[in-house]
Order: sequence, then C-alpha cells, then structure tokens
Amino acid sequence: MPEEAYQPPQVWTWDPDKPQAFGNINRPTAGARFEKALPVGKHPLQLYSLGTPNGVKVTIMLEELLAKGHSGAEYDAWLINIGEGAQFSSGFVDANPNSKIPALVDRSGDSPVRVFESGAILLHLGEKFGEFIPPGDARAECLSWLFWQMGSTPLLGGGFGHFYAYAPVKIEYAIDRYTMEVKRQLDLLDKNLASRQYVCGDEYTIADMAIWPWFAGLARNLAYQAAEFLQVHTYANVNRWVEAVGERPAVVRGQMVNRPFGDKSRQLHERHDASDFELRTQDILDPDESTD
Amino acid sequence: MPEEAYQPPQVWTWDPDKPQAFGNINRPTAGARFEKALPVGKHPLQLYSLGTPNGVKVTIMLEELLAKGHSGAEYDAWLINIGEGAQFSSGFVDANPNSKIPALVDRSGDSPVRVFESGAILLHLGEKFGEFIPPGDARAECLSWLFWQMGSTPLLGGGFGHFYAYAPVKIEYAIDRYTMEVKRQLDLLDKNLASRQYVCGDEYTIADMAIWPWFAGLARNLAYQAAEFLQVHTYANVNRWVEAVGERPAVVRGQMVNRPFGDKSRQLHERHDASDFELRTQDILDPDESTD
Repeated sequence: MPEEAYQPPQVWTWDPDKPQAFGNINRPTAGARFEKALPVGKHPLQLYSLGTPNGVKVTIMLEELLAKGHSGAEYDAWLINIGEGAQFSSGFVDANPNSKIPALVDRSGDSPVRVFESGAILLHLGEKFGEFIPPGDARAECLSWLFWQMGSTPLLGGGFGHFYAYAPVKIEYAIDRYTMEVKRQLDLLDKNLASRQYVCGDEYTIADMAIWPWFAGLARNLAYQAAEFLQVHTYANVNRWVEAVGERPAVVRGQMVNRPFGDKSRQLHERHDASDFELRTQDILDPDESTD
Repeated sequence: MPEEAYQPPQVWTWDPDKPQAFGNINRPTAGARFEKALPVGKHPLQLYSLGTPNGVKVTIMLEELLAKGHSGAEYDAWLINIGEGAQFSSGFVDANPNSKIPALVDRSGDSPVRVFESGAILLHLGEKFGEFIPPGDARAECLSWLFWQMGSTPLLGGGFGHFYAYAPVKIEYAIDRYTMEVKRQLDLLDKNLASRQYVCGDEYTIADMAIWPWFAGLARNLAYQAAEFLQVHTYANVNRWVEAVGERPAVVRGQMVNRPFGDKSRQLHERHDASDFELRTQDILDPDESTD
C-alpha cells in the first residue's frame, strides 16, 4: 500500500497544492492576514461567531441568561464567515489570537475584556451572572464535564467529522480510530445520563450547553450524516436528554443565531435585539411558510 | 490507492483484530472493566495519575502550591499504568468515568469530591488556594488560554503524535493535516510570547502549567522525537519560555511524580511525602549516579 511506503521527511514543509480539506483556509502560521476592525454594537456583550456547535453553545447561554431576566446579557451577535476567512482579520485576531469562533468582547466594565474558547466564555458568563454553575461541591462536577467536552469533541469534530465527512479520501484507519472514540463518548454520556436528568446532576448547567450542540448534531443526523453509521439511536439516555434540552425555548433561539446555512426560516445571520427572532420564530411555528 | 477505494459501511462495527495503535486498550465503550478500589493515603488530596503531559500539569501545580506554603495541598500521588488498563478499574471509573488520567479526589471537606480533566483540576486547585489565577479582568485571559490548551492539544497528542509516532502505518494525509496544526499552535504561542513573559501576561499562571508540558515535550525532543521535523528551535519565544518555566524547582519535581519511564533518577513512581524527592533530586544534581 502506498501509505506503508510513505516516510515523513526530516523536516516538514508546507505544500499548499497537496489536497487537504479546508486547504484554502488553513495555514501553518497564526496571526492576522488582513487589516479590518470588528463592528461594535450597542449592547454590553459583543459576540463574533458562527452557528456551528462551538458557536451555538454561547448563543444558547446568552438566550438562557436573557430568559432569566439578566438584561446585562444583552448582546450583539456578528457573523464571522470562517469559510471566507473572516477569522483572520486584524480585529478578530485581537479578540481571539487563535482565529476560531466564538470570540466574546465584554464591554460592560471600564475597558473591553476579550474572552475566547467557548468553554471559557461559558464559564465567564456563568460566573458573571451567577447562573448555570452549581455552588459548592457540585461546581467541581460541572467543571469536570465542561472540560471533558473541550478535550473530547476535538476528536469528534476535528477527528471523526474530518475523516468521515470532509477529507478528500476515505482513510479506513483514521475512520476506525475516531469512530471508536466517538462511540465511546456516546456510551460514556449514555451511562452518565442513566442516573441523572442532566450531565452534572439534576440541574441544567453550562456543561449541558457545552456538550449538547455536538451530540444533538449527531442524534439529529445534522452533523456528518453519521447517525446510522454510529447507531446513535441506540444510546437511549443521550436521545432523551437531546430531546429535553432541545425543547427549551432559549436553545431553539440560540441555534438560530449566526446561522447562514440550513433551513432559511431558522437563519438569523445577526442578532441585535430580542425582536430579531420574532419573524423567524413565527416561521418555525408555521412551517408551511418556510422556504429553503 | 486502496484508501480511495475504501467506502465506510452503513453501520460501523468494532473489529478488535484490525491493527490500531493502543488497540489492546481502547474500546468503543465506557465504564469499569474490573472491580478494584483505589488506594487512599493520609493527605487531603489524592491524585491518581501518570507522568504524561496531562498528568504533569497537576503535579506541577501541587508542587507550586506546596512551595508557596499551602500545607492543604499535601497529596498522595498514586500511579495509574494506562498501558496495563488501570484506568478501567471500578475505583478509577468512580473517580473519572472518562477513564483518563489525571483524576483527583479532594478529601479536605465533609465528603470526597472528584475532579477530572486536567484543566478542571488546575482550576479547582487554583480557586481552592487562591493562587496562580489572576484576579479581575485578567482572569478571562487566563481562562481563555487554559481552555485553548484543552481544545488544542488533542490535535497535538491524539492527532499529530498518534499519526507521526504511534500509528502502525504512516498516513501522509493525516501527518500533513496535524503537522500544519501543530506548527500553527507553535507559531501562535510564539507570537503571544513575543510581548509577554508568560502565556497570559507577566505572571505565571495555571495556563502556563497547562500548556508547558506539551510544548516542553516538543522543544526538548522528548515527545514523538519530532523537534527537527517540526523545526521547534525556530520558535524562539516558545523556547525561551520553555527554559524559564523548566527551571522552576516545582516544575522539576512535578515532572518526576508518577513517572515509570525515562531516566531512572527522575522517576518517582508514587509520591506521599516531600521527602520522597530527596534521593531523586540528589541523583539529578549528581548525574553520574543516574542509571537507566
């Protein structure tokens, strides 16, 4: 087999002409590629994001906070189209040097504070508003599962999703490797949710918000079209939890924000006011009106 | 090429006979594989770990806390040999259902509290002792980089390391994919450290402790023997920081704990008392005494 014959060189060099999924975007260097400032709206929180699982975590959290009456969680959500390289603007790189969505700039204090990585944003917002992180000993359980998501789903998205759905060739070894890991993650969650309503216990927390978008995507067959391949329907407790969380109005709204793809009636490219959802929500309630 | 011809089946099934690195350990299921309780020592903190980068983060933190005089950070460190499957005991799974090292059980309160995922453990200890997490606005920057490590190094270890060093065949596409990402991570850290002494600013924090073991491993050519391949020496700021952090006595000690491999003079399989280091440290100071 050619792969057995391949031997890496002494020193790796980047060849942009070799086929790689997202090869037009990814480079072996970090930093800004062009000068452009980020827009700034009227609210205390400025979110720069896209409605992928990592983005949706944060819009769900913001909508949950607003649903609890925290007006300080009002936000402007700006679309960052990563397929077009918007994450490499000088403004975005100032907000997140790692050039990944989501990036939050908290302008509620004396000077703007950047927060990047979705897990850090969930923790920042949970602590800021005193919500969705249980106090006392349960905090450790909640943080453990939050960090579990951050360390585990790179193998689901950047591993399984990449090799199953995006890589230009299907590589059996890589697909086997990451499929086994994703099924292990599903089984772990399923066992955990056998005795608990939510991931950390009987309370809905930022750990649910972090984990839900990834596994709801699998369960609903929206991510990678892999539900049958992975037999996601066999993980009954995961499916029960996916349904229960998915019925929360804030979760429905959060999934619409910064979403330029899929069902048009569920796309809200930018969010600047609670009323921005009204027309879209009406479309969802009356699906005959939806167009795609 | 055979890989182009490969088409995944409709439903994936596990074939334990297919060659996979760590195929004797990994399974598509979670949970305990045998009954065995974890040992419990005399100190408030019980650590179950191994001296890999994720394990070393925590022993560095504990040694740093002890160096600052926090006697509440006294700990017993028990060796979990993951190559032999010790992470699948019923006791370990109770402490960390994800069956990964490190797992901490904090017995300082009324009832034991489990904390798993190295990032959650660093945060738990930093908050418990009020150390190594800057207050105020700087907290967000510190947490952002802490979560950056958790989300990024799965592509370094589980991605690059796996395909470059461990997979039974060298797969060019996968090696190219993850090499580009690891070089991007190195460049990102290098640019960040151009204007800062440490990852989050001019203070040493839990973000340094989280990131350092992974990139020190690359810079010192201990991980994957890939320093030349990645040209790690060209990232001058990373190397400066690797050296500076590596000189801290707590970092030297932390790297010795739960280490059953490498230079024998730096192996302390279990740690139950500060005096456990004394003989080993003497060996390091007098390297002619070392045997391997």
